[in-house]
Amino acid sequence: MPEIIFLPFEKTVRTDGSKTILQLAQDARIPLQSTCGGKKKCGKCCVIIQETHGPLSPPSEREKEILGGKVERGYRLACEIRLRHAATVLIPEESRINDLVILTRHTKHTVAYRIRPHIKQLFLEVPPPVLDPVIADRERLILVLEKRYGIRRSVMDPFVLRKLPQALRSSENEVAVILRGKNEIIDLCPGRGGGLFGVAFDVGTTTVVCFLMDLVSGEMRSVKASMNPQVAFGDDVIIRISFCHENPNGLEKLRSSIVLCLNELVASAAAEAQIDRDRIVEAVMVGNTAMHHLLVGLDPHYLSMAPYAPVLQEGQDYKARELGLGIGASAYAHLLPLKAGFVGSDTIACILATGLHRSRIPTLLIDLGTNGEIVFGIKNKMLCCSTAAGPAFEGGHIRYGMRASPGAIERLKIDSRTYDVTLKTIQNEKPMGLCGSGIISAAAEMIRAGIVLQKGDFDEEVKTHRLREGEDGLEFVLVWASESGIDQDIVMTRKDVAELQMAKSAIHAGSTLLMEEFEGEAVKRILLAGAGGNFIDPKDACTIDLFPGCLTAKVLGVGNAAGHGACLALVDQTRRKEAGRITAKLEYRELAATSRFQELFVSGMFFSSARDFEDEF
Amino acid sequence: MPEIIFLPFEKTVRTDGSKTILQLAQDARIPLQSTCGGKKKCGKCCVIIQETHGPLSPPSEREKEILGGKVERGYRLACEIRLRHAATVLIPEESRINDLVILTRHTKHTVAYRIRPHIKQLFLEVPPPVLDPVIADRERLILVLEKRYGIRRSVMDPFVLRKLPQALRSSENEVAVILRGKNEIIDLCPGRGGGLFGVAFDVGTTTVVCFLMDLVSGEMRSVKASMNPQVAFGDDVIIRISFCHENPNGLEKLRSSIVLCLNELVASAAAEAQIDRDRIVEAVMVGNTAMHHLLVGLDPHYLSMAPYAPVLQEGQDYKARELGLGIGASAYAHLLPLKAGFVGSDTIACILATGLHRSRIPTLLIDLGTNGEIVFGIKNKMLCCSTAAGPAFEGGHIRYGMRASPGAIERLKIDSRTYDVTLKTIQNEKPMGLCGSGIISAAAEMIRAGIVLQKGDFDEEVKTHRLREGEDGLEFVLVWASESGIDQDIVMTRKDVAELQMAKSAIHAGSTLLMEEFEGEAVKRILLAGAGGNFIDPKDACTIDLFPGCLTAKVLGVGNAAGHGACLALVDQTRRKEAGRITAKLEYRELAATSRFQELFVSGMFFSSARDFEDEF
Repeated sequence: MPEIIFLPFEKTVRTDGSKTILQLAQDARIPLQSTCGGKKKCGKCCVIIQETHGPLSPPSEREKEILGGKVERGYRLACEIRLRHAATVLIPEESRINDLVILTRHTKHTVAYRIRPHIKQLFLEVPPPVLDPVIADRERLILVLEKRYGIRRSVMDPFVLRKLPQALRSSENEVAVILRGKNEIIDLCPGRGGGLFGVAFDVGTTTVVCFLMDLVSGEMRSVKASMNPQVAFGDDVIIRISFCHENPNGLEKLRSSIVLCLNELVASAAAEAQIDRDRIVEAVMVGNTAMHHLLVGLDPHYLSMAPYAPVLQEGQDYKARELGLGIGASAYAHLLPLKAGFVGSDTIACILATGLHRSRIPTLLIDLGTNGEIVFGIKNKMLCCSTAAGPAFEGGHIRYGMRASPGAIERLKIDSRTYDVTLKTIQNEKPMGLCGSGIISAAAEMIRAGIVLQKGDFDEEVKTHRLREGEDGLEFVLVWASESGIDQDIVMTRKDVAELQMAKSAIHAGSTLLMEEFEGEAVKRILLAGAGGNFIDPKDACTIDLFPGCLTAKVLGVGNAAGHGACLALVDQTRRKEAGRITAKLEYRELAATSRFQELFVSGMFFSSARDFEDEF
Repeated sequence: MPEIIFLPFEKTVRTDGSKTILQLAQDARIPLQSTCGGKKKCGKCCVIIQETHGPLSPPSEREKEILGGKVERGYRLACEIRLRHAATVLIPEESRINDLVILTRHTKHTVAYRIRPHIKQLFLEVPPPVLDPVIADRERLILVLEKRYGIRRSVMDPFVLRKLPQALRSSENEVAVILRGKNEIIDLCPGRGGGLFGVAFDVGTTTVVCFLMDLVSGEMRSVKASMNPQVAFGDDVIIRISFCHENPNGLEKLRSSIVLCLNELVASAAAEAQIDRDRIVEAVMVGNTAMHHLLVGLDPHYLSMAPYAPVLQEGQDYKARELGLGIGASAYAHLLPLKAGFVGSDTIACILATGLHRSRIPTLLIDLGTNGEIVFGIKNKMLCCSTAAGPAFEGGHIRYGMRASPGAIERLKIDSRTYDVTLKTIQNEKPMGLCGSGIISAAAEMIRAGIVLQKGDFDEEVKTHRLREGEDGLEFVLVWASESGIDQDIVMTRKDVAELQMAKSAIHAGSTLLMEEFEGEAVKRILLAGAGGNFIDPKDACTIDLFPGCLTAKVLGVGNAAGHGACLALVDQTRRKEAGRITAKLEYRELAATSRFQELFVSGMFFSSARDFEDEF
């Protein structure tokens, strides 16, 4: 079969001509972007065919339409072409999935650790076997466990049993057993045993974080993060859900890709902490409902259809090996409870981490990931909803939008007299585009400088050569080509601002809708969680009027609260029950079902007037 | 890599020259015998290299010694040769593992079925999902189960959850759930459901039987049997245990080979009964302790070393999928309890099947498989032991011994005046050798005809040309070459008789040893179980003095009692607890630990005098 070489990775794959270049890249785990998941809509998977040992079909109408002038420079859509001859395919910089800057920290505004794991290590001296009476290895061990520690009817699965005879005989019958809950032995080893570790995973639509903790001391031993490799199958959950439905083995492809990712994270976390993966005896996972379902192998199809019912809600223990997770052979993975089709265990973990459910202060909690989940409440009443804020907060649908990788503008400043722009990029590399916080920062600064007006229109009266007419109407030049890392001017267009208005209005409207149910309770505290959330300047959020209550409430970033909630539940099993109680108490509001949301969405499109903030900042 | 073609199977394998022909055959599942498991002792794996595309090493001293004259006819030992060039290898008839006649029936002297499975099918109408409140699929189903049937806190594993959303939506939310025990849902399907089936396995050292039963009616739907494919790795358990120890992945090779065998049996049983394998929702397995350990993947090494402690004794439930068994995805396999390193769940199942543990009649139960397990007792006291009777009862170490396959002599008659022999072979094919019952029958007839004397010597005074001097001293011709299927005379030698004396004396001594503990209790009933057991004529057994008590007790064949016990436990879960109580009550005697056994073994070598039986037969 002909060989296809992917540059710059120099990775070779073989093809029988039946798969598109995108599918070949997905199968070979080559980091080629595809926002729409191969539906020929987004144009993100463009590649350059550098060499081919046979004829190549000319660009299709679809390619010409999506790629525009790029077609003449040799660009093609990877989702459109099937190669039947040996070829060399270059994946240009802009089509690559690059390293992300992922938020792994939480802030001081969250709940502190309490160590109360339900896993303990017990040391046993087991009597040696004798001829009469014959007592098997397992039965001798169980007798000692009962006599010495009062633990009755303990159980072992086959993987523990397999270790038992050798463990006893290699250590003169002295073994350390690892007990989970009341009576399950999940591991054993010869001699005095060793450390006990656990991992918590925050499985986001775009990013995945793995926390490796010492279960005895509660010490964080290492943290590793990576892109969710499912991004190759589509940027948002809806595209991935339809990928499952439309492709043979689609669900299994997504499931195995996330499992592989979790295992790579565990391996690198364990290597960094210099511990044996077998000593990781417990896992906790949080994620939105679609990520949860894909990980367990549950069909997410009905999440995308009214009434959006998940397959299950309650928190569950699974044997980690049954999920394919490479930690201790008999370890369990606990998946925290889900609330609804679009409010998952990540939201529950955020509540757990921020202590919202115990607070007497009316609090608005916004988790700005790929979706925006919103919780509003106090101790005795909590409401939640999810808004399809769209990809704007992560750089999607924005002309020069990009993910939070090196070179992304994360914050900027516009001089309100000269309109000069000063900016800060990730890792201080030459600017290549705007990540979520950069887009919000740009919009907020343009509002404060009077370039953007309350309804989102650009003020044509502003006198600067940075404001000009472009393809999509007026646009403001943030970076001149000479200073940018992409040899083009980086601009913010009227259309970009409109995209942002849609996204922020969804959050604003969702928040308002929940708050309206609390008559007379004004929001006193606003917590911004999630990767987007922590890097966004609260001041910028208020300027674009991202949520109601900016003028009266205290706005705090809480960082990766979902990940922190998972860690809390890892080292303290009572937190898992607490998560169950939170889920039971939390009330879900389906925005699609209310006309009020539509009204609020329309009225939430405005920005605050710049003057509202004059005194404060 | 060079190709090796195995004839007459026309199976081709590739080799890099590092493996012996025997190892290649084992890996490719070619039915090549190897009694010693590749230790170059037994000579059973002889093959003929018909063609080779390169030089072949000349026969080694070891080959010459073991194969004798056969070397000149081109025979080689498969365990000795590594082929480095393409070649054609013929596996001659005598080296092939042939189809066995396997005992699958039990007799009327066993306990009757009582149907009381702990698995039931419940029909549910689950309310459809609604927008408010959001209740997940699992939670809606569980609520109905509680309301309608009072079943609380029911659980489902991931494999059931995976089926749930589609099952509900393809049947307007009407589903049949299969409940095991108090609260575990092990399967569900849309609509009204279907039949419930279970399989019981009797995993013997040489043979494996699979019983497929209807769990509702108790009807036996089909029975399938095959050779245990582990035979390719060695005939007896000791050789297989050392194979595990001496070969990389030895345990895994043996484990996967038996699992494959069980899955093939299930598939063929299900096909015959025309049922879907997914509807097999429970399995029960019995076997000797080594077979049990190999199936679960437990290291059997310590079974072969004093004090012969097994890894576990108690009966266990495992998820069938964790053992690799291809039945319902969430079904369990129950493995009945073990007593000792050489008294396994097959013996417990025999007791269960014969009701020995409830009987007021002092009963001796002998399970004559590859090993001989012996139980003696009455309701309140039961003793057991295991004797390494050796392979003689299955044709091993006997000049013309063979397994119970077509052409084996299973019974014969010697005219005491003319010494003419009349015989019955399996499937009435031309005689090729003697299987276990044929060896016993031949010895018994030779005793009755006065050819063999009480101490096992041949009476030289007997006047017949059938009695002659052979390689191993005197021998008696049972079949002349002209009438045999192998173009050779089939004889019984003095050495063969000595082998049989050793084997029968082990059984006799073990039985006597147990009976001596019951002072004054004479054996009233002798039950012969196992493949060997049923086909052996009780009269022949008494003539060779296989066990004490022949003159006073009633001797009955009970057939495959172990398999029947497994079936009883399959359809009635209370039998599993009963098996636990039997195991607790049963006392084990380790023969290796007593000098009394040695004394009894020596005195048990004699045959009964022919005159003892004159009146009876």
